[in-house]
Amino acid sequence: MTASQNPLINDRDVEFLLYEVLDAPRLCELPYFADHGRETFDLYLQSCRRLARDVLFPTYKPVDESPPRFEGGAIKVHPALKQVFRPMVELGMLTASRPAAVGGQQLPLVVATLAGAYLMAANLSACGYLGLTTGAAHLIETFGDDTLKAAFMTRMYAGEWAGTMALTEPQAGSSLADVQTRAARTEAGHYLVRGSKIFISGGDHDLTENIVHLTLARIEGAPQGIKGVSLFAVPKLRPERWPERWNERRDEGGRLIPNDVEVAGMIHKIGWRGLPSLSMSFGERGDCHGYLVGSPHQGIAYMFQMMNEARIMVGVNAAATASAAYHEALGYAFVRPQGRRLGSRDPAAPQVPIIEHADVRRMLLRQKAIVEGSLALLATTALYADLAAQAADAEERARAQRLVDLLTPVAKTFPAEKGFESNALAVQVHGGYGYSSEYLPEAWLRDQKLNAIHEGTTGIQGLDLLGRKVVAEGGAALRALGGEIQRTIGRAQRAGVEPAWGERLGAAASLLDEVTAHLGEAGARGDVERMLRHSADYMELVSTLVIAWQWLAMAAAAREGLARGASPAGFLEGKLCAAQYWFSTELPRVDALAALCRSGEDSYARMKPEWF
Amino acid sequence: MTASQNPLINDRDVEFLLYEVLDAPRLCELPYFADHGRETFDLYLQSCRRLARDVLFPTYKPVDESPPRFEGGAIKVHPALKQVFRPMVELGMLTASRPAAVGGQQLPLVVATLAGAYLMAANLSACGYLGLTTGAAHLIETFGDDTLKAAFMTRMYAGEWAGTMALTEPQAGSSLADVQTRAARTEAGHYLVRGSKIFISGGDHDLTENIVHLTLARIEGAPQGIKGVSLFAVPKLRPERWPERWNERRDEGGRLIPNDVEVAGMIHKIGWRGLPSLSMSFGERGDCHGYLVGSPHQGIAYMFQMMNEARIMVGVNAAATASAAYHEALGYAFVRPQGRRLGSRDPAAPQVPIIEHADVRRMLLRQKAIVEGSLALLATTALYADLAAQAADAEERARAQRLVDLLTPVAKTFPAEKGFESNALAVQVHGGYGYSSEYLPEAWLRDQKLNAIHEGTTGIQGLDLLGRKVVAEGGAALRALGGEIQRTIGRAQRAGVEPAWGERLGAAASLLDEVTAHLGEAGARGDVERMLRHSADYMELVSTLVIAWQWLAMAAAAREGLARGASPAGFLEGKLCAAQYWFSTELPRVDALAALCRSGEDSYARMKPEWF
Repeated sequence: MTASQNPLINDRDVEFLLYEVLDAPRLCELPYFADHGRETFDLYLQSCRRLARDVLFPTYKPVDESPPRFEGGAIKVHPALKQVFRPMVELGMLTASRPAAVGGQQLPLVVATLAGAYLMAANLSACGYLGLTTGAAHLIETFGDDTLKAAFMTRMYAGEWAGTMALTEPQAGSSLADVQTRAARTEAGHYLVRGSKIFISGGDHDLTENIVHLTLARIEGAPQGIKGVSLFAVPKLRPERWPERWNERRDEGGRLIPNDVEVAGMIHKIGWRGLPSLSMSFGERGDCHGYLVGSPHQGIAYMFQMMNEARIMVGVNAAATASAAYHEALGYAFVRPQGRRLGSRDPAAPQVPIIEHADVRRMLLRQKAIVEGSLALLATTALYADLAAQAADAEERARAQRLVDLLTPVAKTFPAEKGFESNALAVQVHGGYGYSSEYLPEAWLRDQKLNAIHEGTTGIQGLDLLGRKVVAEGGAALRALGGEIQRTIGRAQRAGVEPAWGERLGAAASLLDEVTAHLGEAGARGDVERMLRHSADYMELVSTLVIAWQWLAMAAAAREGLARGASPAGFLEGKLCAAQYWFSTELPRVDALAALCRSGEDSYARMKPEWF
Repeated sequence: MTASQNPLINDRDVEFLLYEVLDAPRLCELPYFADHGRETFDLYLQSCRRLARDVLFPTYKPVDESPPRFEGGAIKVHPALKQVFRPMVELGMLTASRPAAVGGQQLPLVVATLAGAYLMAANLSACGYLGLTTGAAHLIETFGDDTLKAAFMTRMYAGEWAGTMALTEPQAGSSLADVQTRAARTEAGHYLVRGSKIFISGGDHDLTENIVHLTLARIEGAPQGIKGVSLFAVPKLRPERWPERWNERRDEGGRLIPNDVEVAGMIHKIGWRGLPSLSMSFGERGDCHGYLVGSPHQGIAYMFQMMNEARIMVGVNAAATASAAYHEALGYAFVRPQGRRLGSRDPAAPQVPIIEHADVRRMLLRQKAIVEGSLALLATTALYADLAAQAADAEERARAQRLVDLLTPVAKTFPAEKGFESNALAVQVHGGYGYSSEYLPEAWLRDQKLNAIHEGTTGIQGLDLLGRKVVAEGGAALRALGGEIQRTIGRAQRAGVEPAWGERLGAAASLLDEVTAHLGEAGARGDVERMLRHSADYMELVSTLVIAWQWLAMAAAAREGLARGASPAGFLEGKLCAAQYWFSTELPRVDALAALCRSGEDSYARMKPEWF
């Protein structure tokens, strides 16, 4: 199998999720999506597939092999990225789900997410520039004033300028409360920004004329901690004159001049090698203009819009990366002959393809369960996001938003963590060849590792889930999830899915409620350490359960399909096998995880640093 | 913390294993080890530590960054490797455990193994050349005639020439039954060898004048399958005249001339970057002389000596690689300030080192449990190997050999598989910095992946454990293991270790017996597929249990130490925390694993290739 035969994502699976599991076209009954239907969904999906397979994927390996260069203070990216950037913009990747008012296509996120997964599977780094740009533009769309929108957002959504998120600082890392970049207000209204940022993805490049950094900084005199952090748009180049209302005609602002934003160094990342990660200096010469987005001191709250979008996007990155590797391993297992069936004693018999070996099928089925389970969770979360934004009923919107909030840390973490294991299995299926850079799986394995680190590490997602999401509004989100799970159990029953699966999922959901109540009591007593001690196990518990829920939904849709004679039947049988695998191999783990959370097992709590 | 402060392996832990857990000096009551004692053990350990930390470790990163070059048909290695090769030879790494008769030091393997772990942790690739050379020389020592010993073994043990194992072929991979390299006997007594090999580690280099490839090939007319494979010594350069008895004076054989062994290509490995992995051609010009080792058609049986040694060595490689990364992460966690303790509301309070965060301690304790559990298992297995070779009583030797045979696949697989997870955690503890090649953990993560692939993949180890090792001699090995476990449970009871741990371990051991009997019945019925279907889960079950056994032994020794006031007490408390972690977090998994094995859960068994 050559690379070009790798489908990256299974088309039938995407169709299955959108039309058989989720019934995404029902969204088109809502006014916002009224111009859409299955036909426009499929058209966008087909365009993304084609671009992913024919244009992006062939650039993946060359870009991985030649990372950006830092020369003369500026970053030069791989030439192939320049060839793919415009086609991605023209496809509408920046604005697929944005409203027509800002030039968007108003596609449901559930469609844009799955379509985007093809592009990410084909070339993660190339997509990174667009994901950052659209996320940054969306911040300005939501919180910026008309001047900022005209100055920055319009050009960003058009792909003329790029965007970044500039949060992390060397001394603070994940601790945004410790942001020290300063912003001093000038009489002209703009701010002078000064500080250092690190790990700025796409912080400089030569794909676009200009780059707008959505930057966290502290206004002089602001309170300490997260309550004193504000959000600024800090462009690489600024208009010589800042116009009152900067419309789309460039000359109103005069020519673009450097804004004292400098690349201080490039980090040699082990993956995502097409997207530079930079340390950057703002205002070393005292001439870095920043433009306040929204109100002062609201920066963290605003930034959470981009961070939450980015977290779901990281989940899609992760699922896509695992998917590309899974399909590569699957293709390899069909064509690589080695050994014979167990019990075959005839050394003259021809060797069999390795997919005939049970343990190879185990590794492939595990990858399938992780990859397709992840995609299902991400599609489901995206559908809730569509409902949260557009559902007719305010109560339904609120309920959907709670589900999005609850599922976001899970949809980021499960694909990143289990995706890494899945990617390692893809290497393993390739044997010794998998350990070489002549084959692709090792590159995807490197790419994948970042997803457990950036946009909030796995540890931080666990604290977010248990410390914030499940306790918000008296546990309303978990109740909403419980309702969704019950609906799926009902559907599975009606479809004739193995009844034990629904029962076990229901029992696991009750167990989760019980554990959560128990931990919530510790929190209510003020014992936050005790409540959060097993947040990693709690995350694993929720993830395992939520993916079981997704597999039950897929099993139900598969049974429905088999009943009505949908094709290919083998695809639906495969879904049932993967569901069986998850229910028999993974779901039983929730008991031990719940026991750890509930007992408060204290080995690492009482382990003193000097005891290591 | 700079790299040079990394201890690689914890000295106190090695001392603990040798003298407090295992009582290695009791070996010196045996005649073979009579010249040794704690003093000579410590001397050798100290020399290895010093060389590892002062000489080898500083070469690790430069060697990783500049892989060997393939120029003019030959491999040129990094110059730093030339500087470290002789000192490693002079230290006695090639012959530490070999008998004085062949120039060795007759050290117990348990000491040589732990001492070698320092060197491997410092520079895995550099050690690879020596490990291969000593393993290849040992094959000749055991199975070769005096001429071969004089010609090759002596020079190899002296480090003048190097050795390799040349098994794998492109079309056969793990399936040694499909070896197609041919050997035709000549009238002069040598064979003409012709064939292609792949993944030959150290297959060429410029560290030594000559390289002797211990090569599997099929004598013309030999039966098909593994019963027709013979073992040959195939040197890179051969003596112009093959002498009757080639003593140590070079000129007896005349000058060395090329032996028609060619490098066909170099595989770009993602780790172990100092040790080339080559595809090689033997006899393309019809002039490749091979010298039969032992009797015809016994090649696989002979090679198992080297493979079994190599499998344990891979386990040590894996444990050492995980250890180096663990200590790097631990050092980083002490010095990296970030965030505040949970519940701290004062943004002006200084940040705390990340080791203060429970989830970081969880990641470190998990690494400690894996690393130190692996080292304990490897030390224990090596001690059994010492007893298997040297115990006074034949029955004791046989019993120890059964334990070595049983534990070898586990001692190879657990450190490789869980070590990979441990290495990933070391990257994770480093956050975004861990994702860059400016820091070391990513390199060790790359190194580690190979250990689940080479010398028999994890899948093959599972088949070996369940399909061969536990069923041999009517289950004698598992009974011997059960006896050892009971002894440890008794020791733990007497030492005052938490009684529940011993009870749970005993219950898990009974469960293993039961599951094994159940699977053995399927095998006895001829249903080999059913017996081996869950060999991966069976391996995980045995590994989890065996490591729990090691942690119980360490807990017992720690309690004994605390009772007699051994120091530092913190080290012993840390051992108890890690044991607690394993018993509460990992051992409970055996129930679900046993259920999978017993039920024969059939998801991937019935999954058809076309259903994926």
